[in-house]
Amino acid sequence: MRDSRFFTNQGPLSLAHILQATGALCALENAESRMFHDVASLEAANAEHITFLDNPKYKMQLAETKAGACLLREKHAPLAPPNTIALLCDDPYAAYAVVAALFYPPLLVQGFIHPSAVIAPTAHIAGNVHIAAGVVIGDDCIIGNGCIIGANSVIERGVSIGDNSHIGPLCSISHALIGMHVMIHRGVHIGQDGFGFAMSAKGHLKVPQLGRVLIGNHVEIGSGTTIDRGAGPDTVIELGVKIDNLVQIGHNVHIEEHAVIVSQTGISGSTRIGKGAILAGQTGVAGHLTIGAGARVAAKSGIMGDIPAGTNVGGYPAVAIKDWHRQTAILSKLIRTKRGSYDG
Amino acid sequence: MRDSRFFTNQGPLSLAHILQATGALCALENAESRMFHDVASLEAANAEHITFLDNPKYKMQLAETKAGACLLREKHAPLAPPNTIALLCDDPYAAYAVVAALFYPPLLVQGFIHPSAVIAPTAHIAGNVHIAAGVVIGDDCIIGNGCIIGANSVIERGVSIGDNSHIGPLCSISHALIGMHVMIHRGVHIGQDGFGFAMSAKGHLKVPQLGRVLIGNHVEIGSGTTIDRGAGPDTVIELGVKIDNLVQIGHNVHIEEHAVIVSQTGISGSTRIGKGAILAGQTGVAGHLTIGAGARVAAKSGIMGDIPAGTNVGGYPAVAIKDWHRQTAILSKLIRTKRGSYDG
Amino acid sequence: MRDSRFFTNQGPLSLAHILQATGALCALENAESRMFHDVASLEAANAEHITFLDNPKYKMQLAETKAGACLLREKHAPLAPPNTIALLCDDPYAAYAVVAALFYPPLLVQGFIHPSAVIAPTAHIAGNVHIAAGVVIGDDCIIGNGCIIGANSVIERGVSIGDNSHIGPLCSISHALIGMHVMIHRGVHIGQDGFGFAMSAKGHLKVPQLGRVLIGNHVEIGSGTTIDRGAGPDTVIELGVKIDNLVQIGHNVHIEEHAVIVSQTGISGSTRIGKGAILAGQTGVAGHLTIGAGARVAAKSGIMGDIPAGTNVGGYPAVAIKDWHRQTAILSKLIRTKRGSYDG
Repeated sequence: MRDSRFFTNQGPLSLAHILQATGALCALENAESRMFHDVASLEAANAEHITFLDNPKYKMQLAETKAGACLLREKHAPLAPPNTIALLCDDPYAAYAVVAALFYPPLLVQGFIHPSAVIAPTAHIAGNVHIAAGVVIGDDCIIGNGCIIGANSVIERGVSIGDNSHIGPLCSISHALIGMHVMIHRGVHIGQDGFGFAMSAKGHLKVPQLGRVLIGNHVEIGSGTTIDRGAGPDTVIELGVKIDNLVQIGHNVHIEEHAVIVSQTGISGSTRIGKGAILAGQTGVAGHLTIGAGARVAAKSGIMGDIPAGTNVGGYPAVAIKDWHRQTAILSKLIRTKRGSYDG
Repeated sequence: MRDSRFFTNQGPLSLAHILQATGALCALENAESRMFHDVASLEAANAEHITFLDNPKYKMQLAETKAGACLLREKHAPLAPPNTIALLCDDPYAAYAVVAALFYPPLLVQGFIHPSAVIAPTAHIAGNVHIAAGVVIGDDCIIGNGCIIGANSVIERGVSIGDNSHIGPLCSISHALIGMHVMIHRGVHIGQDGFGFAMSAKGHLKVPQLGRVLIGNHVEIGSGTTIDRGAGPDTVIELGVKIDNLVQIGHNVHIEEHAVIVSQTGISGSTRIGKGAILAGQTGVAGHLTIGAGARVAAKSGIMGDIPAGTNVGGYPAVAIKDWHRQTAILSKLIRTKRGSYDG
Repeated sequence: MRDSRFFTNQGPLSLAHILQATGALCALENAESRMFHDVASLEAANAEHITFLDNPKYKMQLAETKAGACLLREKHAPLAPPNTIALLCDDPYAAYAVVAALFYPPLLVQGFIHPSAVIAPTAHIAGNVHIAAGVVIGDDCIIGNGCIIGANSVIERGVSIGDNSHIGPLCSISHALIGMHVMIHRGVHIGQDGFGFAMSAKGHLKVPQLGRVLIGNHVEIGSGTTIDRGAGPDTVIELGVKIDNLVQIGHNVHIEEHAVIVSQTGISGSTRIGKGAILAGQTGVAGHLTIGAGARVAAKSGIMGDIPAGTNVGGYPAVAIKDWHRQTAILSKLIRTKRGSYDG
């Protein structure tokens, strides 16, 4: 099913193994010894595959699946066809993630330093670290056990990276302290100067940027994203934050635990994003604002003021999401009232 | 005319050669032996230059050009001054592109592998390939005849690249099968994990991304663009698609033949872009949508629903382009009606 | 105060030194021999620190600062507490920038070429240049005195870089002439082909891009930014322009002196940005437009027409900033009038 050039399947796995890893309950007795060979979607699965039903809008596809077993909520179990074993769980998508990672586990890190890597003698590299070709590591860096540093990445002086963190190829990192189990994809740039100038008509004077970037455990950062270091305070990305591709994080920004920042979003200097907040794609947030915990920001919003915790907002400038939908509806009505029938 | 540090002119070329390459017809008899030395704009051209008139708004400049010859449509030929030979063709801009490429052809690829490149012994590199300094090529990669791999680029295991494709410097490519005559500019990242998490307030569980990126022949991809691999299905970029700089393509996106995606556009996961559709700059498209064939999307639009084939849309959220212009006009009128005269 | 892994403090410095460098006047007699150890914010400073008050909204914090001295305007001097020496100046933020750079001066460039750098024999490298590991420099390049070229950057044939310019790691530069005292951060791509095609339903024909990129003195360019070379004319960035991260500059764009382009902005082909204009973050500017000198464009604006010099604009499409605020206010009023009370 998978392209074996890119993915190495660790199956088959017994249903007992799958149930133990996910905590799912098997609706069929005496099935624990059944072997499974892969994960697949409801449509693509056959009798050797585990599938899942998370979003109820795919219920119809469940009825027609050929999958050998399906991770689903108890209430959907009656919809499974006779040849598909129902595996009952509370969060089928999370359970699917666990099973997929059983079949396709992350590569085991094997201690290796490519001879073309350029590593300062004062850097401290733990024992079991993979450093690819062309990597450059500066003075006094600390690279923890189980780390991978991708080809041609550049880690500048003093940076520390916690255990089991993976840095993709072609990244640059400076002025940063990075936690454990962090995943940084390709082409990420962390720690460069923030955009700080004392501006005047005669020219703009550069203001030295004297802070750092602090990145917590279990953070993931997408390809091409840029994170500027603090101007005096630090730029902080807390535990479990997930950042997508091509995001811009300005100096002194503080992103609290488990917030999610989707692709091409930009966060201006000194803004704080609350715990668990979600900023959808292409959002822009002005500087010196507070986005409250659990706030949800619609794609492409322009945030020009503080957002209370738990609020849903959208629009440019962003307002409560219901108000934005009303604005859209009223504009749509006005052009019909005042200009006659629709001919777009 | 050109800076010879960067461009090597292959001229002079005879008019006969130019006519044969473009299919243009010469309005003047016995001129085929005339020699030309370069291409130039209507204003900058002299008697040794070929110029062109495509957009009729530059008709006035045609009347005053000093160019030796001008590629133009037959109806504009009477406007050419007496010393400018009219070269009649249906698509003068395309003809200009052909002539410019005669004077400045792509560099011939000469087989060369820089000694600092790190190439896995199991990689298959065709005979006539240029591999620049610092390139890293992983196990089982296939690099076709006539390819160029730019300096410090990283091609991970199993990737295949078809004949005559050019990869710029500082790119990373994994989990991808790439066609022939593909041009990938600098700093492009292809094949990283899509942004897939089973989300919860306690943290977000990473979902293994098990698909690939498939890129058709004659695709061009701009600098700094990121293309995530599929989550299970593949991310697909079909024949002849042109993608500009700093574009984000999410997992499972499918872009059909000859679509055009302009700079800083973002396309969310599992969306399909129809044949020949054009998405202007900074457009955002939500996930799981279908943009029909030949649709045209205005710059900075926010697409939140399917777009029928052949439609022109714009706005945030995007509507039929005429409706968007009406919304703009009504807003402009309302602020005058309700608040008095303009004083911005 | 600073993390010494990343910053090396050159203090202590005498007040006399600080006064001389900034031109500030000391409100206390006989204090010139006082020594200071660092800069700090109003809240964080202690008796050994220099702080500043620029934005009057922080006046309250001045009253409570523990700083040894404070750069401020004369009118705010009476607000300084007794133990804080008032240092009078016209532009306290600029003075702070000067003092911060005294404590943390840019690294002195020491002539050094890493043995892994690949430098064409025909390149001309001045005496006192730092070339990091993995750098690739092509034929006939000229690198001026005092330049730094960061690790794994790629400078292609014919490029010239003026004295005292710093190129970050992982940059690619081609077809460009770069001035003196230019700072280019990491992952910047300069000189690739513009997005030029003769388009048709049957496919898009590439138009050779025959211009260059010209970059003036004292320009700064942020991480991940892409600047395409001209199509025939050049792309021009004049003296002192400051460009933030992840900005896209299209072919033939001309940005005049001291303009400021904030993060994730995109400027389409052949547009001209006037002297001292400011484009805030995520702005999009269509092609072939003129933004007048000193114009100020609000964040996330979509510019679809020329903007007169000195104008403030915002919105999508952008209008005079007051009109945009009125549009926002009227939409907000309409949804209340027509649909009842707020329940977002």
